[in-house]
Amino acid sequence: MNLLLLEEADFIAADRVVLADRRFTHMQEIHRVAVGDSLRVGRIGGLMGEARVLRLEGHEAELSVSFEREPPAKLPLTLVLALPRPKMLRRVFQTVATMGVPKLILVNSYRVEKSFWQTPFLEPEAIREQLILGLEQTRDTILPEVIIEKRFKPFVEDRLPAIAQGTLGLVGHPGPFPPCPRGLDQPVTLAIGPEGGWIPYEIDLLGKAGLTPVQLGERILRVETAVTALLARLF
Amino acid sequence: MNLLLLEEADFIAADRVVLADRRFTHMQEIHRVAVGDSLRVGRIGGLMGEARVLRLEGHEAELSVSFEREPPAKLPLTLVLALPRPKMLRRVFQTVATMGVPKLILVNSYRVEKSFWQTPFLEPEAIREQLILGLEQTRDTILPEVIIEKRFKPFVEDRLPAIAQGTLGLVGHPGPFPPCPRGLDQPVTLAIGPEGGWIPYEIDLLGKAGLTPVQLGERILRVETAVTALLARLF
Repeated sequence: MNLLLLEEADFIAADRVVLADRRFTHMQEIHRVAVGDSLRVGRIGGLMGEARVLRLEGHEAELSVSFEREPPAKLPLTLVLALPRPKMLRRVFQTVATMGVPKLILVNSYRVEKSFWQTPFLEPEAIREQLILGLEQTRDTILPEVIIEKRFKPFVEDRLPAIAQGTLGLVGHPGPFPPCPRGLDQPVTLAIGPEGGWIPYEIDLLGKAGLTPVQLGERILRVETAVTALLARLF
Repeated sequence: MNLLLLEEADFIAADRVVLADRRFTHMQEIHRVAVGDSLRVGRIGGLMGEARVLRLEGHEAELSVSFEREPPAKLPLTLVLALPRPKMLRRVFQTVATMGVPKLILVNSYRVEKSFWQTPFLEPEAIREQLILGLEQTRDTILPEVIIEKRFKPFVEDRLPAIAQGTLGLVGHPGPFPPCPRGLDQPVTLAIGPEGGWIPYEIDLLGKAGLTPVQLGERILRVETAVTALLARLF
C-alpha cells in the first residue's frame, strides 16, 4: 500500500478522516505509524495529498488530510480481454489498475470456459476491491471502468467498431504477424485473448471491427504477464 | 502447462518415457489426453519435440518421444534483483523463466527484510520447481541460472563490474532519470530494487559498477510487474 485511499464515508469533516478497517490494520502492522506521522493519501476519484496521524486508538485512527496533486495520467487505451480464469482474474484487475488502464472490457471467447463466468470475483464489490489494491500499489485514485460483455459476436460487431474508431486497433496474437509496435503516442484499442488464444473466426471478426493482429515473439505468456508486457511495449 | 518437460530419469529408452507424477495428473485432468494423442514435449536442457501417448493406466503414462527443435532464444540479459518477499519470489522465478532471462542474481539491499533470506523458497529444489513451471508456460527447456548474493557490497564492488562489462548497465529506479530505453539489440545488465527502492548509497555503488538509473514513469509497480515491464520495453 503506497497510497492510503479514502472513501467519502471516511470523512468526518472536509479535512478529517477516521479509519477503522483493513487500512487501519495495515497502517499499524505494516507502516507502524505513530501519532504525528505523515502518510500519502488519495481521495477515490479525486486528488492526492498528505495525511497526518492525529489520534491512534485500539480500533481506529483519526487523520488530518490535505489534497493538492492530480493523480498520474492514464494510458490512452481501451483493453478488451477474454475473461481469464478466476484466480488470474483478480490479479489482472490489480495489474490493470496499477498500469493505468482507464477502461477494461471483459469478453467471452470460444476458449473461455463457461464456468469462469460464474466466479464471485466478477461481482462489482469484488472487482472494486482488487482495483483499489492496484491503485494503492501504483499511487492513483481513479478507478478503471470495467465493462462485462458476455456475448462475443454482438459486442464485436455492434459496439467494438465505435470504440476502436480513431484509435490504433490491435489484437495480441501469436503467429506470423507484425511485432507489437513500440512507444506509441496515440490512442489504442488492444484485445488480448484467452489461454490458448483466439480462434480464427474471432480474429476475423476482430479484424472487421478494426483490430489487426500483432505478436510478442514465440514465448507464451500468462494473461497477466502478457497484459503488462504489451502495455510496457506500446506506451 | 504448454510444454511437457522431461527429466533424464523419465526415459526408459532413447525414445520412450514413463510419467507418474504431477505431469501425469495434469495430462489426465487438464489436457484429458487419450492413447494416441500428441503432446508438445521438451527435454530439460535440450531440444523440443513431440510425444505420443502409448499407454495410460491408473497411475502412469508411457509416451514415445522425438526431438527436433531448438528452444526459443534467451534474452541477452543478466538480471540483478533485490530479494523480493517470499510470496512474490515464487512468481518472480516463474516470470524470469517465462520471459527468457538466462541469468538471475538475487542480492541483498538495505530495504530487503532480513527474514526474507530465511524462506524455504530459496532452497535449490524450490527454485527449480518454480523455474520449471515458467518454462512449461512459455515453452522453453533451458533453466535460467540463479545466483544468490547475500552481501550487497562485495558483490557490487568485486563481481558486478566484470558482469556488466561490455553490456549496457541499467538500474530501474524511480526519479528524475532518463526513461528506460526501448527495443535494444545489445546485451544488458539490469538491476531492479526492492519494494521502496534502492537507497542512494546503493545507487552510487551500482553506478561505480557501470549501471546507470533509468525510470519507467511515476507509477509504482510490484516487483513482478516491474520485471515484465522493463524486459518488454528493453527487448
